[in-house]
Amino acid sequence: MQLARVHNLAVSLDGFGAGADPSLDAPFGHAGMRLMEWFFPTQTFQAQTGQRERVEVQGASDPDDRYARLSFVGIGSGIMGAGKFGPPGWQHDPAWTGWWGDEPPFHSPVFVLTHTPRPSVTRGDTTFHFMSASPAEALEAARQAAGGLDVRIGGGPTTVREFLAAGLIDHLHVVQVPILLGRGAHLWRGLEGWEREYDAVSETTPSWVTHLTFTRKEAAR
Amino acid sequence: MQLARVHNLAVSLDGFGAGADPSLDAPFGHAGMRLMEWFFPTQTFQAQTGQRERVEVQGASDPDDRYARLSFVGIGSGIMGAGKFGPPGWQHDPAWTGWWGDEPPFHSPVFVLTHTPRPSVTRGDTTFHFMSASPAEALEAARQAAGGLDVRIGGGPTTVREFLAAGLIDHLHVVQVPILLGRGAHLWRGLEGWEREYDAVSETTPSWVTHLTFTRKEAAR
Repeated sequence: MQLARVHNLAVSLDGFGAGADPSLDAPFGHAGMRLMEWFFPTQTFQAQTGQRERVEVQGASDPDDRYARLSFVGIGSGIMGAGKFGPPGWQHDPAWTGWWGDEPPFHSPVFVLTHTPRPSVTRGDTTFHFMSASPAEALEAARQAAGGLDVRIGGGPTTVREFLAAGLIDHLHVVQVPILLGRGAHLWRGLEGWEREYDAVSETTPSWVTHLTFTRKEAAR
Repeated sequence: MQLARVHNLAVSLDGFGAGADPSLDAPFGHAGMRLMEWFFPTQTFQAQTGQRERVEVQGASDPDDRYARLSFVGIGSGIMGAGKFGPPGWQHDPAWTGWWGDEPPFHSPVFVLTHTPRPSVTRGDTTFHFMSASPAEALEAARQAAGGLDVRIGGGPTTVREFLAAGLIDHLHVVQVPILLGRGAHLWRGLEGWEREYDAVSETTPSWVTHLTFTRKEAAR
């Protein structure tokens, strides 16, 4: 069975997965990088960025890394929303190919949901396909492209919320950061009772974030 | 120094400290008792209720109990909102003296914030005083009645949020329960950046709740 999985989605205590007013200079808007500080010292992040960004890997981040690395295990394709692929208005810039430079960390086909599709573009071993589709349609396309492996729903929070609301997510890993953003893109709105068909486990790490993992109950499959 | 402290305030993953539509039969509204299930097996809860409610104390609840019991240490008085003292409309029932019967678990003066004050009433060793006051005014009255000890801000979530917004809380203990209520009384709304003057620590227990404790930084006092 191919699962639809979400990993490393950081949210504030008040449920925002990104701040307000995202831009080229501030991809997370007014939140800055505060939602991702737990991630930067992990081996997984450092391996992604290679020489591009130097942050010392910290041993204290090992418990976080155990979660972070799962995002890259058993994944055959990905889906992301337009808001994750670029800053507002990227659709009007034909030269925009994502935040990730020549070596995006996805290593698989990624389907970008946008109302203004464009031709596919390849960077490194990642090919971005652009499509205007419902969550279910996008998931079907991504499954077919995944070579039998799982599909990562890569965010942002609004896109993940739509997939959650549609009942399409099998595995959700959320990293709760004890900050209050007050505004931005909310993950949880309108999902009353969503958790009932999932088993939830949680773990707090030395970085004071809490990793929450929801896995669909067998009986609900 | 007398601290203003909040303990054992359970919130859903989407930030609701009580469900919608509270009533005499459903004090937490549509949330039922799901926010408090971590609390019932603790020694602290069982000691409160004595013979009234029989739930077996479970050893697995010991980590939760370490937090739960702090709510009863060093407290000289309390404050609660009208919504915690009774179901909607209790102000029109002269015979209503709270949910807690003849032996409320507070063992100290409790100030109930209501726009329709009534004469004080004593049950056991708890005396309820009723006042229409701002958070700051209520805290001043509670401090004077606390015999030098701390003041418990006892909820509900709307009242705690008002005290948080007014900068009056020194210690906040929140119990995050991994459920999505979708609606009800929200704790976090409008508190952007509130945590900046606090040190945060968190711990997940075998009941899968996460205890978050915010303590005001010394420099901010």
